[in-house]
Amino acid sequence: MRVIDLTHGVRAHDVRAGALTLWRCARWLKSSVVLAVVDPGVGTSRRGVAVEAAEGGVVLVGPDNGLLMPALCSLGGAIAAVELPSVRVEGAGATFDGRDVFAPAAARLASGEWELGHAGVAIDPSGLAGSGVALVTVGATGEAACEVLWVDRFGNAQLNTAGEGLGDVVEVEVGAATVAARRVRAFGELADGDLGLVTDSYGLLALALNGASATSRLGLREGDAVRLSSAGAGERRR
Amino acid sequence: MRVIDLTHGVRAHDVRAGALTLWRCARWLKSSVVLAVVDPGVGTSRRGVAVEAAEGGVVLVGPDNGLLMPALCSLGGAIAAVELPSVRVEGAGATFDGRDVFAPAAARLASGEWELGHAGVAIDPSGLAGSGVALVTVGATGEAACEVLWVDRFGNAQLNTAGEGLGDVVEVEVGAATVAARRVRAFGELADGDLGLVTDSYGLLALALNGASATSRLGLREGDAVRLSSAGAGERRR
Amino acid sequence: MRVIDLTHGVRAHDVRAGALTLWRCARWLKSSVVLAVVDPGVGTSRRGVAVEAAEGGVVLVGPDNGLLMPALCSLGGAIAAVELPSVRVEGAGATFDGRDVFAPAAARLASGEWELGHAGVAIDPSGLAGSGVALVTVGATGEAACEVLWVDRFGNAQLNTAGEGLGDVVEVEVGAATVAARRVRAFGELADGDLGLVTDSYGLLALALNGASATSRLGLREGDAVRLSSAGAGERRR
Repeated sequence: MRVIDLTHGVRAHDVRAGALTLWRCARWLKSSVVLAVVDPGVGTSRRGVAVEAAEGGVVLVGPDNGLLMPALCSLGGAIAAVELPSVRVEGAGATFDGRDVFAPAAARLASGEWELGHAGVAIDPSGLAGSGVALVTVGATGEAACEVLWVDRFGNAQLNTAGEGLGDVVEVEVGAATVAARRVRAFGELADGDLGLVTDSYGLLALALNGASATSRLGLREGDAVRLSSAGAGERRR
Repeated sequence: MRVIDLTHGVRAHDVRAGALTLWRCARWLKSSVVLAVVDPGVGTSRRGVAVEAAEGGVVLVGPDNGLLMPALCSLGGAIAAVELPSVRVEGAGATFDGRDVFAPAAARLASGEWELGHAGVAIDPSGLAGSGVALVTVGATGEAACEVLWVDRFGNAQLNTAGEGLGDVVEVEVGAATVAARRVRAFGELADGDLGLVTDSYGLLALALNGASATSRLGLREGDAVRLSSAGAGERRR
Repeated sequence: MRVIDLTHGVRAHDVRAGALTLWRCARWLKSSVVLAVVDPGVGTSRRGVAVEAAEGGVVLVGPDNGLLMPALCSLGGAIAAVELPSVRVEGAGATFDGRDVFAPAAARLASGEWELGHAGVAIDPSGLAGSGVALVTVGATGEAACEVLWVDRFGNAQLNTAGEGLGDVVEVEVGAATVAARRVRAFGELADGDLGLVTDSYGLLALALNGASATSRLGLREGDAVRLSSAGAGERRR
């Protein structure tokens, strides 16, 4: 059994960011047990669960707070789920189910010591919390109302659209401002200071600068709304 | 042989924090060789040592500057110790015994190539530097004079007491201020902005907020004094 | 096959820092395939390459932007090189050759599935980008014109000289200021606040304080010029 650390870099309490991180990894998770913990509700009534995805031979283990759902939806949804019993470590409090409940269950599932059914009581997968990621398509008028899914460590802002149908130059509305961005294949095609839209390594559009942070420049944060429209689309409509 | 990275997140030069980090891990260290390096005195007269603990089949390797002692005390103390010879790597200076002395010794001990006695000259374990962690119990008057052992990445402040005998509401003195904290089982039981005392995953009380940093709010740092008293304890004494 | 993470701590876009990080590791890289990615030019005409070093049984894989060259020069230079074909992952953009081109090639080379010749089209190693690290020797007048190669997490400033021939006290010119530094064997030999020059774990001189950051104190950054001269060397010349 090999253990791979996907990341320990998710911000404290940020379930949304954790869920999207797992979602971005989903296509690479094959025949694995995935332990995920961003768990501000630990010790409350939120359940701990282990869930078998329809595709890829993947079982996800963690809190039922929406963290697992985007990845699950990418893997064809859940075909079985159990609620994990709350097992306490002697002398310890109830603040770290990641160590005390989820990791032991994940280890036993990964080693084959447990089948899913042995890990807890079966529950209805349709009652699991959270939802998948809504990707946006470009409308007939050449516009897309997007949001920022992720800001990577370079300051690129990943949007929830593949951007198919957008033109080569795109008007980008952020708050009250509108700026132009050129669609490019690589960061290096952008002159210094020029804003670009690049198809990133997950197949989604990202706002980018060459060697600098687009997010800092535009004042963008994860979850912010960004409206894209092909330059001249407004004129063409008239 | 499997290598596990416990942490690389200890602050530079902070032997105390390193010692307490290792101490918190002690109960999970079974049949292992533990390499620990926080070593501001590297190259001076402080010794390098390998020490066998009384319990758990654990050998600790590192500088004899107090770093190893809290974990050793948790593991029943030392039953044997050797001083490691100072072996220099050709061309390198004397600034990184972690790489040049401790890691090679730990690797040879872990692989079975060396018994402890082959790693160096036997020394008296009672002469090792440092001390264990003094945990505080709550007195008959319902009070405990504590200190902050650790501030985790969420801003929870771990105290050196399990807090047995404290009431449900506790007066917390920090510097000149006194604030009330409610004892709860989980962070999620606290309303926004309410200070709580929770039994953490190591069985110790921690000052906590729900989804925010108690340490930032109270201006606390590791090593700071914190006085706890059951609310009304003063009145009851009169 | 064992995978070792040398570092994920290189600053974004900083090819120079990445190249020097790899160069510092070069003597420890034995019989290995090294994957290195600091790649601001991804997707442009810069090539992806796999290069066999003359010594150590080392193959380096990454972008041909100078990142690999200092380590290669330390390993006796390149004896063979191939240009890696650009293989795209379905649905993904052209922004992450580290994942899409370099890592798959490195994995196949490391597992023995590929010989170097199978990884791409042979190219002339003499055409690879970049250069080795120029180390500076102390001149007959007791002076050396250095630069800061690296600032470590303690704030020590590694210089590009072993400093052989310098006296016990050294005048250090940084910008318009000149300060004295004492040559010591260990950080702990320095009194609080005294600047020292220590031979570091790579055999190079480093400007250091005891338990504090020399770099912060002197306002130094990587790449800055630092002039060393044995104290009194100027007088002796007159």
